[in-house]
Amino acid sequence: MKKIVTIGGGTGSFTLLSGLRKYPVQLSAIVSMADDGGSTGVLRDELGVLPPGDVRQCLVALSESSDQLRNLMNYRFEEGSLEGHSFGNLFLSALEKMCGDFSLGLENAMEILHVRGEVIPVTQYDAHLRLILSNGDVVEGENKIGQANIQKFGIEKMEYGEKVDANPRALDRIMKANAIIIGPGNHYCSILPNLIISDIARAIRLSHARVLYVANMTNKSGHTAGWDVEKYVQSIESYIGKGRINDVIVNVQKPRSDLIQKYERKEGKNTLVRVHSTGASDRTYRLIEARVVSNRTSAQSKADTLGESRSFIRHDASKLARVVMLLLETEGIQSVLRRVL
Amino acid sequence: MKKIVTIGGGTGSFTLLSGLRKYPVQLSAIVSMADDGGSTGVLRDELGVLPPGDVRQCLVALSESSDQLRNLMNYRFEEGSLEGHSFGNLFLSALEKMCGDFSLGLENAMEILHVRGEVIPVTQYDAHLRLILSNGDVVEGENKIGQANIQKFGIEKMEYGEKVDANPRALDRIMKANAIIIGPGNHYCSILPNLIISDIARAIRLSHARVLYVANMTNKSGHTAGWDVEKYVQSIESYIGKGRINDVIVNVQKPRSDLIQKYERKEGKNTLVRVHSTGASDRTYRLIEARVVSNRTSAQSKADTLGESRSFIRHDASKLARVVMLLLETEGIQSVLRRVL
Repeated sequence: MKKIVTIGGGTGSFTLLSGLRKYPVQLSAIVSMADDGGSTGVLRDELGVLPPGDVRQCLVALSESSDQLRNLMNYRFEEGSLEGHSFGNLFLSALEKMCGDFSLGLENAMEILHVRGEVIPVTQYDAHLRLILSNGDVVEGENKIGQANIQKFGIEKMEYGEKVDANPRALDRIMKANAIIIGPGNHYCSILPNLIISDIARAIRLSHARVLYVANMTNKSGHTAGWDVEKYVQSIESYIGKGRINDVIVNVQKPRSDLIQKYERKEGKNTLVRVHSTGASDRTYRLIEARVVSNRTSAQSKADTLGESRSFIRHDASKLARVVMLLLETEGIQSVLRRVL
Repeated sequence: MKKIVTIGGGTGSFTLLSGLRKYPVQLSAIVSMADDGGSTGVLRDELGVLPPGDVRQCLVALSESSDQLRNLMNYRFEEGSLEGHSFGNLFLSALEKMCGDFSLGLENAMEILHVRGEVIPVTQYDAHLRLILSNGDVVEGENKIGQANIQKFGIEKMEYGEKVDANPRALDRIMKANAIIIGPGNHYCSILPNLIISDIARAIRLSHARVLYVANMTNKSGHTAGWDVEKYVQSIESYIGKGRINDVIVNVQKPRSDLIQKYERKEGKNTLVRVHSTGASDRTYRLIEARVVSNRTSAQSKADTLGESRSFIRHDASKLARVVMLLLETEGIQSVLRRVL
C-alpha cells in the first residue's frame, strides 16, 4: 500500500483526509499544533493541554465510527460555561489529562474512534507561534496572526517563541512516504506552522517521496491577497527547497457566482487563487488544473465545525481525492487527466 | 435468558450492575433522575439537559468497551472552568443536545459504549425532588436533601415538585421481568426517587417478578441513622405494598475495623445496617445473610467517581452478583447458600 503523508491542519486537512480515507492507502496526517484560539485556546490556558482542535478534525476525517460519533466530536456547546467548546476538544483534553501525555491520549483516541491511518502532531512541544513583521512589530499567537493584516508591513519571519522540536514520528513517516501532500489550508496558520520546524522541512527535502501541493481555492485578505499559485509555491519552497514540489493541483472550476460575490464582499476582489497568466516557462513542477469545487453551499450540520465567518468556497473531498489518487497511480498521467477532469 | 430489572442509582447500581454484567442475563437498569448537584446540577441549569450522572454510572458499569473508555467516562476535570465536570456527563449532555432528546442521546451512548443490556431513566420528565418535613419545612432538590438532617423533624412526604410520569419503557420492563432488584443505594436520594413515581410502584406491585432487596451496608446520619434492615423494608414496602419483597440480602461480614472507625467518626456509632435482634416471627421475606464486603479500601483510580467524602464500606460487585444469581438460579436455595456463604 502506498504511504501517503498529508501536512496541514484545520478544514483543509479534514477535507483532503475525508476523501483519501476511502482509498486503500496508508495515511499519516501531520498536523499543526499552533492553534491557540477559541475552545482550543481556553483548554490550553486552563488545563495546560496541547491544542486539540486541528488533531480533532483529522481524527474525525479518518474515523470509521458511526456518523453519530463523528458528529458528536464536532458538536459545539452553545450555552453556559461550556459555550464554544467542541466536544471532541474536551474528549482529547480529558484523555491527555487522564493518560498524562498528549501522545498517549491520542493513541487511545485513535482506538476509540476507529481511526484509519494515523494522526501525528507535528510537535509534542507546547508551541506558540510568533510573527515578526518588517516594521519590527511582533504578532504573538496563531489566533492573533489569523486576524491580523500582516501584508500591510510585510513579513520578516515566522517562528516559535520557544524551542520546538519535530515529532520524531512525523520525521519517520516523511522519510518513508511515497507521497507527501501539502495543503490545502490557511497558509500562515495551518501550512507554514509545520514547515517552519526545520527538521520537518529538512526531512521533506531529503525524502524520496513525490511532493504534491494542493493550492487553496481562495486568497485570504491581509494574508495572501492577490497571490497566484506561483507565489504560494515560492513561499513553501523557501522552506523545503526550490524545485522540491513535483505537482501542484489547482482548481479551475468556477464556484457559483453568488458564493464568489459573498466571498468578495468579505475578502475583497480577485479572491480566487489563479495561475499566473504569463505562462510556465520556468515552472519546476507539473501543474494539474482540476475541477474540484464543492457543491455544498452551507455548513453540513449544526454540529459542523465551520462558522459562518469562514469561506464556503471549498474543495470537494471526493473530487480532490480522486485527482490525487489518479496522479499517484497513473504513469501516463496527462492523458488520463485530460479524459476525466 | 432471565430478565432482571435493577432499580436504584449512583454507586449502588454501579456496583450491582458491574457484577451482574458478567452473567448471561438480560439486564435493564432503571435509574433515578433526581440528581441536581455537582457537575450534573450545573449541566441541568446551564444546558437544560436531564441529569446525566446516575445514568452515566450505569452505562459505565454495563459497558463492554475498553477500560480506557470506561475510565474516561468517569474522568473528572480538575481545573479551570471545567473543574468538577465528569467527562461522561459532558458526553451524555452533548449527545442529548445534538439529538434533541435525552432518550435518543442515551440510545446513541449505549451503542458507542457497547453497553450490554439497557439503561432506562425512570422518567423522561425534568424531575425536581421535594421533601416535606413533619414540621412543615420543605427541602428542595436531591442535593439539598442529601445534605440535610431530615431525621430531626421526621418526614411527612417525599414527592416531585411537578408532574413526573414514569418512563413507559421502565414500566414495560418491570412487568416483563423475572426478577426486580431494589438497591443498594442511598435510600432517599437513589432508591425512593424511583418508587415515589406511583406507576413504578404499581408496576412492581402487579408484576409477577420475584423482588429482591439488597440492603445497604451502612446507615446515613441524618437520614437513616439507627435503622435496621426491617426498617428499610418497611419504608420500601410502604410504596410497593406490604409483603411484596421476596428476598432480602443483608451483609453479615464485618468490614475492616479501621474502615468502621473512619466511618463512625463521620456518621456516628452503629452505622452498620443490622438485622433486628428480636427475630423473624412476622417476616414476610426470606433473609439472606451474605458475606459481600469489598476488600478495596480506596477509590479505584484517579478517574474514579467516588470522592473521599463517600463511604468506603461497600459491596463487592462479584460477591454480590454471585449471591443474587444463586438466589435466582437455585430452587433449593437454602442448602446451597449454606454451602457457599
